[in-house]
Amino acid sequence: MRLLDIYAKFQKDISFIEKELERSIDVEHPILREASLHLLKAGGKRIRPVFVLLGAKFGNYDLERVKHVAVPLELIHMASLVHDDVIDDAQTRRGQLTVRSKWDNRIAMYTGDYIFAKALTIVTRLSEPSIHQIMSKALVEMSIGEMEQIRMFFHTEQTVRDYLLRIKRKTALLLAISCQLGAIAAQASEKTAKQLFNFGYNVGMAFQVRDDLLDICGTEKEIGKPPGSDIKQGNITIPVIFALQNPALRPVLLRELERIEASDGQTDVTDFLNMIRASEGVTRAEAMVSHYINKAIRSLEGLPDIQAKRDLVNIAHFVGNRSY
Amino acid sequence: MRLLDIYAKFQKDISFIEKELERSIDVEHPILREASLHLLKAGGKRIRPVFVLLGAKFGNYDLERVKHVAVPLELIHMASLVHDDVIDDAQTRRGQLTVRSKWDNRIAMYTGDYIFAKALTIVTRLSEPSIHQIMSKALVEMSIGEMEQIRMFFHTEQTVRDYLLRIKRKTALLLAISCQLGAIAAQASEKTAKQLFNFGYNVGMAFQVRDDLLDICGTEKEIGKPPGSDIKQGNITIPVIFALQNPALRPVLLRELERIEASDGQTDVTDFLNMIRASEGVTRAEAMVSHYINKAIRSLEGLPDIQAKRDLVNIAHFVGNRSY
Repeated sequence: MRLLDIYAKFQKDISFIEKELERSIDVEHPILREASLHLLKAGGKRIRPVFVLLGAKFGNYDLERVKHVAVPLELIHMASLVHDDVIDDAQTRRGQLTVRSKWDNRIAMYTGDYIFAKALTIVTRLSEPSIHQIMSKALVEMSIGEMEQIRMFFHTEQTVRDYLLRIKRKTALLLAISCQLGAIAAQASEKTAKQLFNFGYNVGMAFQVRDDLLDICGTEKEIGKPPGSDIKQGNITIPVIFALQNPALRPVLLRELERIEASDGQTDVTDFLNMIRASEGVTRAEAMVSHYINKAIRSLEGLPDIQAKRDLVNIAHFVGNRSY
Repeated sequence: MRLLDIYAKFQKDISFIEKELERSIDVEHPILREASLHLLKAGGKRIRPVFVLLGAKFGNYDLERVKHVAVPLELIHMASLVHDDVIDDAQTRRGQLTVRSKWDNRIAMYTGDYIFAKALTIVTRLSEPSIHQIMSKALVEMSIGEMEQIRMFFHTEQTVRDYLLRIKRKTALLLAISCQLGAIAAQASEKTAKQLFNFGYNVGMAFQVRDDLLDICGTEKEIGKPPGSDIKQGNITIPVIFALQNPALRPVLLRELERIEASDGQTDVTDFLNMIRASEGVTRAEAMVSHYINKAIRSLEGLPDIQAKRDLVNIAHFVGNRSY
């Protein structure tokens, strides 16, 4: 099933959130507005707002309340992308110039700060302390995850556990709280919110492993940037960690990694990618994606059999198989 | 009166806040902890927490509640300093190495993000929506102010109004809400909170003008960094804006500014500083400091004549005259 087909059913609500997103960054400052809009127009799957909407369907669905969670969560995601691009020296994302390459690093940093702050002003319109607590704690974890990623650049001794903890913080947590906060904003029960958290968490883990696989196995056309950008910046992802566990492959991979690090990422990584592609690293990472997708779907057991539940299951399958 | 003498009276509460600050950034992540602690240990005047404490004295003073505002406000200030240092390419601050020169820009950006997020988790322990709203709106304004500062680098046509709006966002607002949120957290009346906001705002304006004067007239020993760093990075402050209004001085200043900009700040600015020092720019900026300090003190009229009020007045006078 294509994501578009799943989204079609609640297109009206998604368009509403999209308009609210635009409205939220309608700032007078010229560069800030342009940089934020540029980012917004670059699109994206809007999975976080969609998870919020679907989570809210398990309670008293009220778009006017739910938007105060859906919009901030997408803004937080956008802000973290801008800050990532500063770190990554990324020139393009989703085939578009990044804020830092179109303007500069300083503007990217403050655009990110602005979007973060804007996200907070919106969520303050809901008064439940639990919503603020959950969101701010996730922000702390996200920033630790980002730091951890830098610390682990070209760190060939890292374990599967290191990786999993990192992608939990970097990706899975925000998807988890998207589902959870949708439910909380709609006054669903605590148990329902917890189940939805688990769903989002597991989909998020699968999402990131799939993303890391795509950076190794995808084409530039599919992923909107040249493959291998992870390894060029030193980000050792799970297919590589698995491949490094193969005693026959390990020495040659270590030599390649040393060469890439020495070149500061300014080298051809085709050989390296081909070795990983041919290794069991890819198949084991694929299995990991399936494992998390299955866990995600099982998290929904016992929830009422409404359309939103079927939509979540379909999105989970899409995330498991996506090639973009 | 020295700041230390004013602080001495409530040293116990300040020490308590200091310990809470340390506790708040006690994170497991090694670099993050080291970078944050480095920043914390560099000290500072802690004016924001002190304003919170004094603001709270006009209501039901309860340190256990008030700390949930005092600690976040100082953390927000610290986080904005780390992000400033990324922008400024600053090597030292308060005579200490900055996070970005001790580690690097990426670590500084994420350390800032982490400290911001940490600040939010603490304030969520108070449930008053107004506190969250005021704080998040100030964050938005601060980020716009930072962007505005970049946009105005070497912009010789800027007006006094441009400058005032910028320092309001960059500095005065956070000091204003420190006083205000202290009062709100202590359930003081809205009118009292508003008066305290005005006090903090005016002290903040004076504080920043004084800071900008010190960067021109101070010695490296006094200000902990070489004078002239503002103009080297293109930050045109009020003494310069006033000096540029002098038709006899303007052409030579414009030539100097062009030379400094062309050198990317890598040039000697002694001549430039000396011209500003000798101009009416300095005396007019000094008059501006006095104007704001007087307005600040007048804002307190009608508030009960308690020790906290006298302390605020003394701090205002200190800010008006400080040389560090």
